[in-house]
This record gives sequence, structure tokens and C-alpha cells, in this order.
Amino acid sequence: MADTDIIIIGSGPAGLSAAITAKVRKKNILLLGQKDLSTKLVKAHTINNFPGFPGISGKDLEHAFEEHLKQMEIEIIEKRAAKIYDLGGNFAVQCGQDMYQAPTVILATGMITQKTFPGEEDLLGKGVSYCATCDAALYPGKTAAVIAYSSNEEHEAEFLAEYADKVYYIPMYEGASFDNEKIEILNEKPLEMTGTDTLEALKTDQRDLKTDGVFILRESIAPDYLLPGLEMDGPHVKVDIHMHTSVPGIFACGDIAGLPYQYIKAAGEGNIAALSAVNYIDAQKRAGGHDNDHTG
Amino acid sequence: MADTDIIIIGSGPAGLSAAITAKVRKKNILLLGQKDLSTKLVKAHTINNFPGFPGISGKDLEHAFEEHLKQMEIEIIEKRAAKIYDLGGNFAVQCGQDMYQAPTVILATGMITQKTFPGEEDLLGKGVSYCATCDAALYPGKTAAVIAYSSNEEHEAEFLAEYADKVYYIPMYEGASFDNEKIEILNEKPLEMTGTDTLEALKTDQRDLKTDGVFILRESIAPDYLLPGLEMDGPHVKVDIHMHTSVPGIFACGDIAGLPYQYIKAAGEGNIAALSAVNYIDAQKRAGGHDNDHTG
Repeated sequence: MADTDIIIIGSGPAGLSAAITAKVRKKNILLLGQKDLSTKLVKAHTINNFPGFPGISGKDLEHAFEEHLKQMEIEIIEKRAAKIYDLGGNFAVQCGQDMYQAPTVILATGMITQKTFPGEEDLLGKGVSYCATCDAALYPGKTAAVIAYSSNEEHEAEFLAEYADKVYYIPMYEGASFDNEKIEILNEKPLEMTGTDTLEALKTDQRDLKTDGVFILRESIAPDYLLPGLEMDGPHVKVDIHMHTSVPGIFACGDIAGLPYQYIKAAGEGNIAALSAVNYIDAQKRAGGHDNDHTG
Repeated sequence: MADTDIIIIGSGPAGLSAAITAKVRKKNILLLGQKDLSTKLVKAHTINNFPGFPGISGKDLEHAFEEHLKQMEIEIIEKRAAKIYDLGGNFAVQCGQDMYQAPTVILATGMITQKTFPGEEDLLGKGVSYCATCDAALYPGKTAAVIAYSSNEEHEAEFLAEYADKVYYIPMYEGASFDNEKIEILNEKPLEMTGTDTLEALKTDQRDLKTDGVFILRESIAPDYLLPGLEMDGPHVKVDIHMHTSVPGIFACGDIAGLPYQYIKAAGEGNIAALSAVNYIDAQKRAGGHDNDHTG
């Protein structure tokens, strides 16, 4: 049973534009993101080419967007999508321990600006993971390390500690704390994941940490990891001019859908993605196909 | 010799967004359009999905856009493009008796909402024309009719009368007047162009008007007439996600580049088209190829 019509992942200019247009078109949406919309936007000094807002600061444009969301009664759910599962007719989006279902998903995650670690990509799925909730059950009696980019990941570490014997938690931010004797905070700088066929150690600036797994928990996740099989075009999700991806029912917009990285381009694509999702849902309904009502 | 870097045809949300981004990128532009930007925009009652402007009227959004153009010192040239010629390296855009040259052109003309007349398309180039300036020289000693949608076309009729013996002027607006004995105003309703291989008559609600030519002068012109050979996708210019058309150096954005007809989509595409034009120009310069400086 679907929870909503459209799940939108990301609250930057692309995601919020998609949310606004979907709401105008009377669809139910879930907007996953952050209360301050977009870290990149908020930090922008001056934006000169968002028509109607000459020379505006990123902070002021964010306020204008927040006011728009408020007037349209659009809420942001502060959760990070960790995985998308294709259930045939609906997609399930896993956010920590929660799962949401909808017939369509719009990817508006922006680009990951953090670099990957040496060894990370080679050992992905061989000891390196981006989702503690998804893979925690593989670690009973084992040791795991967590590299965490925000305090939101602390509950992920707690969940992992329900399975693992020992969790090393390496915060990439200030002020991490736990009241859990299985979790040890390491204030070290992660450098590399080593191992040939499987992960053997996490090398830091202070040691070679022997561990069975390393969980790297960033603000956003590469889309082809989020949804395996999604066709990419270099670092971007491959889209056509209607913001269709290679997977029917999945749409992408904004930076993740390709260059140029521009706010007005992202907002325009969010609009297109939303209308394509609306058309997709309406076509499904006309075909009498999949279950996507909201009576449950 | 190029007059500018980029000629932008159309001053709606797509064209002005292209102009703003091109200006930010320090390119010289010519923006052909109308002082009130877009008739469609100005008439819009409420626009709910242009992010940052919840529930704004078309008129107020137009004012915000005008202020943006003013702050960036972007002028609108009130001229209508009648024809684009590919000169190899530069394009020449004909506007009445004026001609502008640039290595790139952005089509942001919007969609023509006026219906074509029966017989119009069949007889195009066989007595029916969209450009008096282009074809006036074919009419020495002949008779021509002009169907005109705005008072801007009156000087086109004057020019035509320098060649033709007789010009019937059918205004589709109020208040046309001439001080030219060769031009006769007919307050009739044009209905159909008749003829088999060539035009024979313009049928109106009052008569069959025998004429050698009919000039239909609308606010905007179908892009594949503007630039013969431009690949279309139904009524739209065919574009890729970078807003490239089938002709290198020609870009398209907004309604003319496809559905959905949405202001924020048009503005986003204008941004993309401008950056694609900038990239094209810079690549040409690096290749040391075509002449597009501004020293002349």
C-alpha cells in the first residue's frame, strides 16, 4: 500500500520546486530533506541569475523558498534516504528504520561534494556499506566502524550496536556522544580502506584499525547505490528532457541530473520532474494498474 | 563581422533568463522582444509554482523580472525576428530592414497561439509569406495583401508599397492608419487562402480578394520557417537536455522547446541555453575559428 503519490528526495531548489508543482497538481507528496533546505544554497554569497531576485544572498533566497513551502503547507521530513527498493508498482524508500512507499520517486539529492576514500569504491559491498540499517544484521558478534558526517547518524550507530559486538564511531563533526558501552568514539582522521577481496582494515592517521565493516554515512548517497541498476552518465543520473531516468517511475532533477549546477536550472527541472511524475501516476490510474490510493 | 555574442529571440521567462545568465557570464547579447516581456505572462492571473514567489500575479512577476533586467542593465530591443540566415560561422537575424549578426542564436519565441488559416501552410512560399522585408522585391507592379496583428507591421506595409502597386492592409487590431495612396485598409475578416499551385485569392467574409501575395505578420513565427532545416518535434523545436537544436550554434528554450508550458521550466531552460551558447562561443574561440569579436 502506497503511503503517498510521490516521494521527493532532497529539499534544494530542484526538490522544493518539484514539491510545489506536485502540490499545485493536487498530488500527495513526501519531501525528504533538511529544514534549512540546502547547505550549498544557504552558503551561497550572492546569486545573480535566479530571475526575479537580482543579487540575492543564498540565505535570503532560502527564506523566500521557505515562505513558499509554508504558504503551500508543505512539510519537510528530516530523514536521509538510504536505499530504494523496486517492489513492482511501488518503490520503497528506506530512511533509517522507516520505510515509505510510493509509485514514483523524484531524485533531487544534489551532488556529493565529499571525496570518496581510497579503497572505498572497490570494497563497497565487501565490507564497506552506506547503510547501517540495511546491513546491520550481517554483523552479529563482529566489529564495525562508522564514519559519520552528522549527528543524525548516532542512532544508526546505536542500531548497529544491537548486532555488532563493537562499534568504532568516527565523527566528522563536533560534539558526538553516546551512552552505550559497545560504542567507542575515535577522534581520528580516516584515510583509506584496505583489503583485497574483502575489507581488512580502516587506516586512520593514527593506526590500522582492524574491522569487519566500515559504514560511511554521508548527507547524500550516490544514486546508483541508492537504486542499483539506475543508468548513470558519468557522475550524473541519465535523464531525458522530461527528467525520466532509465527506471520507469523514477525521475531525477537538479545537480544530480547533470550540468550546469545552477539554482534556476534545478528549479526548472524540479517542475518538469513533478509533472512527469504526475503524468506517470495518472497513466497508471487510467490503466487501472497499480495500487496507489491513500485510503489505507 | 558579429554585432554581438548571442542574439536572444523572445523576452518571456526563457529569453530573459538566458539574457541574465549570459550577462553574468560577461557575454554581449541582443535581446529581441517586447517592453512588457510576455503577453502571456502579463495576463496570467496567479502563478503558484515559481519558487520564491508564492501566489504571485503575472503582472507582479513581470515587474520583478523587469527590475532584474534593469539592475543588470539589459535592454530589450523591440523588434520581431523575421528570418535567420546561416552565414557559416555567424547567423544573421533579419528584423524588418535591420540585420544583426552573432555566432549564436537562442530561440525563446514561445508558442504561436493563433491558428493558421486554411490554405496558409500549403501556399507558404507560393504567394504566402511571413516577411515583407524578405520578399517585397518580388512584387514590383503587383498586388499584395497584408494581414497584420500589431501596429508594428505598418512600416512593413509601407516598405512593401515601395515595390508593389497596391497593398491591401487588413489589421487584426484597432486604429490602423496610413498616409499612403498605394495602401488601402480593409476592415474585413480573412478566412482562407485559395489556389492550387500558387495563391489565387484571399477569401474574406466579404469577398474573394484577387492578389499576387498575402503577407501574414504575427507576433512570432514558426521556428522552422524562421530557420529552414531546423529539426522539429511536432510543433516544438527538437532539443537535447543541453538545449542544443539540430543546428550547431542555435539553441532553444521555453515553450517553443517543448512541454510543459511552465514559467519556471522556461526560466530554467533559458539558463541552460545561455550556458550552452557560452560554451559554444568559448570553444570556437579556443579553436581560433570564426570571427566573433566586437572590435568592429
